[in-house]
Amino acid sequence: MTGPDQPPDALFDPASVAVVGASAQPGKWGYWLAKGALTGRGRRQVHLVNRRGGSLDGVPFRAGLAGLACEHVVVAVPPAQVRPVVTEGLAAGARCFTVITSGGEPAEERALAREVTARGARLLGPNCMGLVDTSSELRLSWGEFPAGAVGLVSQSGNLALEIGRLLGRAGQGFSRFVSLGNQRDIDAAEALETLVGHAPTRVLAAYVEDFRDGRRLAGVLAAAHAAGKPVLLLTVGRSPAAAGAAASHTGALVSSYDTVAAVCRDSGALLLESAGELVDTALCLLATRGWPTDGAAPRVAVVGDSGGQGALAADAFAVRAVPVPELSADVARRLAEALPPGAGCRNPVDLAGAGEADLGSYARVTQTLLDSGEADVVALTGYFGDYASADPQRTAHECAVAGALADAAARTGRPLLVHTMARDTPALAVLRERGTPVYERIEQAAAALSGAARLAAAAPADPPSLPRPAPPAADGGYETVRALLATRGLAFPRAEFVTDAEEAVAVARRVGFPVVLKAMGLAHKTEAGGVALALADADAVRAALARMRASTGAARYAVEAMAAPAHAHELIVGVRHDPAFGPVALAGIGGLTAELHPDTGLALAPLTPARARALLLGLRHAPLLTGWRGAPAVDLEAAATALCVIADVAAAHTEFTELEVNPLLVHPGGALALDAHAVVRGV
Amino acid sequence: MTGPDQPPDALFDPASVAVVGASAQPGKWGYWLAKGALTGRGRRQVHLVNRRGGSLDGVPFRAGLAGLACEHVVVAVPPAQVRPVVTEGLAAGARCFTVITSGGEPAEERALAREVTARGARLLGPNCMGLVDTSSELRLSWGEFPAGAVGLVSQSGNLALEIGRLLGRAGQGFSRFVSLGNQRDIDAAEALETLVGHAPTRVLAAYVEDFRDGRRLAGVLAAAHAAGKPVLLLTVGRSPAAAGAAASHTGALVSSYDTVAAVCRDSGALLLESAGELVDTALCLLATRGWPTDGAAPRVAVVGDSGGQGALAADAFAVRAVPVPELSADVARRLAEALPPGAGCRNPVDLAGAGEADLGSYARVTQTLLDSGEADVVALTGYFGDYASADPQRTAHECAVAGALADAAARTGRPLLVHTMARDTPALAVLRERGTPVYERIEQAAAALSGAARLAAAAPADPPSLPRPAPPAADGGYETVRALLATRGLAFPRAEFVTDAEEAVAVARRVGFPVVLKAMGLAHKTEAGGVALALADADAVRAALARMRASTGAARYAVEAMAAPAHAHELIVGVRHDPAFGPVALAGIGGLTAELHPDTGLALAPLTPARARALLLGLRHAPLLTGWRGAPAVDLEAAATALCVIADVAAAHTEFTELEVNPLLVHPGGALALDAHAVVRGV
Repeated sequence: MTGPDQPPDALFDPASVAVVGASAQPGKWGYWLAKGALTGRGRRQVHLVNRRGGSLDGVPFRAGLAGLACEHVVVAVPPAQVRPVVTEGLAAGARCFTVITSGGEPAEERALAREVTARGARLLGPNCMGLVDTSSELRLSWGEFPAGAVGLVSQSGNLALEIGRLLGRAGQGFSRFVSLGNQRDIDAAEALETLVGHAPTRVLAAYVEDFRDGRRLAGVLAAAHAAGKPVLLLTVGRSPAAAGAAASHTGALVSSYDTVAAVCRDSGALLLESAGELVDTALCLLATRGWPTDGAAPRVAVVGDSGGQGALAADAFAVRAVPVPELSADVARRLAEALPPGAGCRNPVDLAGAGEADLGSYARVTQTLLDSGEADVVALTGYFGDYASADPQRTAHECAVAGALADAAARTGRPLLVHTMARDTPALAVLRERGTPVYERIEQAAAALSGAARLAAAAPADPPSLPRPAPPAADGGYETVRALLATRGLAFPRAEFVTDAEEAVAVARRVGFPVVLKAMGLAHKTEAGGVALALADADAVRAALARMRASTGAARYAVEAMAAPAHAHELIVGVRHDPAFGPVALAGIGGLTAELHPDTGLALAPLTPARARALLLGLRHAPLLTGWRGAPAVDLEAAATALCVIADVAAAHTEFTELEVNPLLVHPGGALALDAHAVVRGV
Repeated sequence: MTGPDQPPDALFDPASVAVVGASAQPGKWGYWLAKGALTGRGRRQVHLVNRRGGSLDGVPFRAGLAGLACEHVVVAVPPAQVRPVVTEGLAAGARCFTVITSGGEPAEERALAREVTARGARLLGPNCMGLVDTSSELRLSWGEFPAGAVGLVSQSGNLALEIGRLLGRAGQGFSRFVSLGNQRDIDAAEALETLVGHAPTRVLAAYVEDFRDGRRLAGVLAAAHAAGKPVLLLTVGRSPAAAGAAASHTGALVSSYDTVAAVCRDSGALLLESAGELVDTALCLLATRGWPTDGAAPRVAVVGDSGGQGALAADAFAVRAVPVPELSADVARRLAEALPPGAGCRNPVDLAGAGEADLGSYARVTQTLLDSGEADVVALTGYFGDYASADPQRTAHECAVAGALADAAARTGRPLLVHTMARDTPALAVLRERGTPVYERIEQAAAALSGAARLAAAAPADPPSLPRPAPPAADGGYETVRALLATRGLAFPRAEFVTDAEEAVAVARRVGFPVVLKAMGLAHKTEAGGVALALADADAVRAALARMRASTGAARYAVEAMAAPAHAHELIVGVRHDPAFGPVALAGIGGLTAELHPDTGLALAPLTPARARALLLGLRHAPLLTGWRGAPAVDLEAAATALCVIADVAAAHTEFTELEVNPLLVHPGGALALDAHAVVRGV
C-alpha cells in the first residue's frame, strides 16, 4: 500500500501479524482479534502481545514487539498506550498499523498518523473495527464475516456486521472488509481503490459519512465501474437528524446528500438506503454478471403458481421501471404446450396449480422464457422452494428442479431471481449455492433488479479536475462578478454603472429605453427595493433612483437594457462549495411553478459541455427547453456554454464559497444572464 | 350471515360441518380439508363424506349428506359433482357451502349461487381455498394458518399462505381467513363486514382484484375505521401486465388503481404494495393500539449502539414523513446521566458501545425517551437481540432487558419498534410474545410506522350515495351538457347558438366583442379547427365562421363572450365510470406545466363541498389556488361548488360514461366553465 500500483500486501496479506492487547478472556476485543488472527496461522506468522503475559490456544503472549517479525500490527490497548506501541512497532519494522483503540483527541490522532506515515508505514483507524480479507485468511476484527465476493469499506462497524448477517443468510459474504474508523491516514477512497484490482471482489460496497477527498473518491468509483465492478454506496444526511449525528461522529462538515447522489450518478455508483437494500442488490449483481450493458432496462418475465402473486410481482417490477413485456404469440403457444389448460400463458405466467401438481413446470416454463429472447430475466414468485415443507417426500424432486432452474440460468447467461415464502429449505440452499438470488419479499427482488439496471445504464466519467486558481476578486458584488463572467463570454444585457440620476439618464439613453435600474452593494437587492424594471423614460429613471437611494442608501447603480427575448425560460445557475467534493454546480428551472416544486440538478464543477447539457436535460421540466407543445426550443448549446463559464469561474475563484446567476434567461437565440453575485469566503 | 346484524355463525362457527370429497391420502385437498375440519371436533360435529368410503383418523367416511347434520358443507369434488352435492346438502338443511372446486363455467357458477341463495343459504366460492376461524377452531382450508389478530379476506390463496408465513415468523397470525374465490355470492365487502364486529380481529387485511360492489366495500372500509379497526388493502393494476392478468383471472373489468387508491384514502384504509409490507404494517398497528389520533405524525426517537445505524434509521423514518425531532436539553441531560461519556444524547441516540457494555442501557434510555413526552415511538436499531448469540451466557440478561423494554412500552402506552440484525433469538422471542414488532430491516419498520401514521391521520367518510337517475340527455354535445350544468348553477360565459354568419354577428353584438366561436357536433373541436378565440369584430366573426364551416362542415355554432378573468387558473374536471365503483370525479390543474407533470386527484361522485375542497387542496399545485407569492386566492367555495354540480350531473346521468369540463376557470371572483362535453354509453 505504498503506492496505487503496488499490492497492499502489508495491509491485506502480511507475512506476519502481531495483535497487541491480546486477551484470553472471551467477550474482550483482544480475545476476538487474537482468535481471528490465529485462523491465519497456516499462512503467516502470528504473534500475540500482552505485557501481563498469558496465552491463548497454546500461543504464549509476548511482552512487547521488540525483536518480533510484525509487518502488520493490530493495536487494542488503552488510549495512553497506543503511541508507545506504535513507536515500538515502527522500530521493529512494522509496515502497517490497525488501531482499534478509540478515545484519542483529534490532535493526538493526527500526530500518530504523522509518526506512522513519516516512516513510510500506513495507519488504518484509529477507532476502527479492524479488517478482514477472507481470500488471504486475514481476520483482524470482531464478529462474523462469512466469505464471499463483496468487498466492504465501512465507517460503521455494526453496519458491517448487519450486512454480514444478511449476506450470510443469503449464502454470500465478504472478500474483504475494511473498517475506516477516523480515517487519519487510509481513507474511504484509498480503501475502495484496493478493491478495484482485487480479483475475489466482484461487488464493492461502502458506508461513508465523511468523504474526505471527495474528488479522489469519485475517481475511484468511476474506475471501479470501468473495471466492471459495481459500487453500492450508503451514506446519511437526508434528514437534519442524521446529518447532525454524522457531523457529530466524524467531527467533519457533512456533504449534502444531494451532492453525494449526483457524484454517484456521474461516477457510475449506486446510492442505496439500507443494509438490506445493499445486500439485495449485491446478490442480483453477482447473478447478472455479463449482462448486456446497452443501457436498456432488462425485461423481466414473472412466473408464479398464483395469479395474485404474479400480478403483484408484475406491478412491483413495473413501478420500479423494469418492464414486464407482453410475450409474443409464439412464446405463449410454447408455454401453453408445457402447461395444462387454464394456465395463464401471458406475462406474468400463472401456472395456476400446475406448479404444485408438477414441480417440473417451473423449470420448463423458465427454460422456455430464458430461451425466448423476449425476457432478460425470469423472476419466480411465491411458492417455489416450499413444496417439500408440507410433504418432505418431495424434497429430492424440488432440489432437482432447483438445480434445473440454476442450469437454465447458467446456460443462457440470463439471471433467475426467486421470491419465495419459504425460508432456508433444501431447495433454496441449492439455488443459493448456484448463485441464484433468493428474496423473502417480491419488492426486494424488484428493487434489486431496478438498481442493477440503473447501474448497467450508467455512463460514468472521471470527476473534473479543478482549474488553476484565479487571482482573487475584489468582492462578490454584481459589478465584479459580471465582469469576471462577461470576460469569459457570458452574455449580459448592455449596462453601465453610475452614481447619480443624470448619469443614469444619460446611460439609459445610450442603452435604450426601457431600462432596469439596480442598486449596488446590497445582499438581497430585490427584497430591499433595489431593483426597478421597465423604466420607460428619463423621468421614470430619475424617480426610481431617488426612491432607491432613499430606501437603500446605495452609492452606485447599474443602468441596464431591459431584455425580454421571446420564448425564454428562466434558469437558476449556482455553484457552492462542498467540504469534501469542492465546487458543485447547480442548475434549475426558475419561475412560478418551479418555486412550488423545485426542479434542480447538481454536478461537480467545472462542467464539460456534455455534462452541462445532461444537467439541463435531466431536469423534470427539460421538455420546456427542447420545444414543448410547438414552442421553439431554446439554444441548448448556448445554455450549456453559459453553465460551463459560470462553473469555471466559480471553481477558479476559490475565495467564492458560492456564486449564483439568477435568472439566466435561455431562449431560442442564446442565453442571457440578468443578475449575478458571489459570497466571498470569510466575508 | 343472513343479515348484517346477525352473527355469521353458519359460516364461521357452525354447529356441524361436513367435508364432501374427504380423502385419506396426504397431498390431496380432501385430506387437508378433512384434517383441518377434525381439529374442531371438540366444538362441533364433523362429518367426512366420500361416496367410495374409507376413513381418516378413525372417522369413517359417509356415503352422502342425506340425514347428516351439516350446517356448513365444504365441497371438494370434481366439477360435475358439485351441483348434486349442493342440492343434497340443501335438502339436508345446510345453511352454508364453501366450494373449493374450480373449473365451472360462469353461467353454471351463477346458477349454483342462485340455487343456494334461493333457499336462504349462502355460498363461498366456488374456486376458493376455504376459510379458517382460529377463534372458533374452524379450519376448512389447506396450509398453515397461525392464530392471531389479523382477519384476512383474499382473492388469492397463495398470497394468504405467504402472509401467514410472514405473520407466523413474527409471532402473529390470523383471527379469520376467508378465501373469496369467484365471489358468486359472498363478496369482498360482505366478508370484510363480518370482521368489523369480530372481537378477536384487531386488524383487517384484504387482497382484492375484482371489487364487485365497490360502494358497499367503501362503506365497510369506513365502518371498520370508525370501529377502530385498521384496514390494509392490496390490489393490482399499477402496470398493464398486472391489470391484464387480473382481468384474465376474474373475468371482470378491473378498476383503475388510482380509483382504488382514492377510495382507500377517503374510506380510511391503507393501500399497500406487498404481503411483506402488509405484515410489517399490521405488526406496527397491533402495537400502536390506543394511539392518539389527532392526525399529527408520530415523533420517533431512534436508539442504536452504532452511530451509522442510528443515522441511517433517522433518514429512513424522516424520508417517510415520520419526524425525528430534536430532544430538549433536559431530556438530553437525563440520557447523559444514564450513559457513559462519548454517547450521543441527541436523536438518534448513539449508545456508542454502552449497549454492548451494559445491556441495561437499552432499557434505561428507552424508558427515559418513552416517558419524556418528546417521542411517541421509540425505535431500536441494529444490534439488540443479538448480544447473546456470540456469548450465550448473556441470554438471560438480554431476555430480561427485552422484558423491561416491553414493560416500558406497555406502561406508557407508547410503542417500541425493534430493527435487529438478529433472527429468532430468545430475546426476540420475548419481544414478539409481548407484542413488540421486530423487523429485519430498518426500512420495514419505517414504512410500517409511516403507514400507521397515515391511517391515524385519516378522516374517512361514508361513500356518497348515488343520486336518483335523471331523464337521459339527448346527446353529449356542448349545447346539451352546458344546459344541464347551467340549470344546476354552473356559470358559463354568455353564449347563443346559431347556424349562420349573420346570426353569429348579431349574437356577438349582443354578448359583446371580443367573442369565441365554436363549431358544434365535433368530438375534438379544437384539434379539428372548430374553435376561434378573441374575434374582435363582425368581419372576424364572419371570416371565422366561413373557415370553420369549410373545414368542419358543422351546421351549428356557439357564439360566446370571451372570458378572461384576472388571476385565473385552469382546472380540468371530469367524471368517469368505474366498473366496480361507479362514477368517479377527477379534478386537475390545467395549463402548460401541468401537461408536463399531470396533477390530478380522484374521488367517488357525487361530491360533498368538503370533499370537493379536499380534492382541490390535495393537488400538488394547490398553493396556486390559495394565493401563491402574493397573488389573490381564487374563490375556493365557488370552485368546490362547481365540482359538486359537475359530479352530481354526471352521477345522475347514468347514460354518460364520461363527462368533462375543460377548462374550468377558477379565479378570485368565481368559477367559469369554458367548455363541456359527455360521452354517451354505447354511442
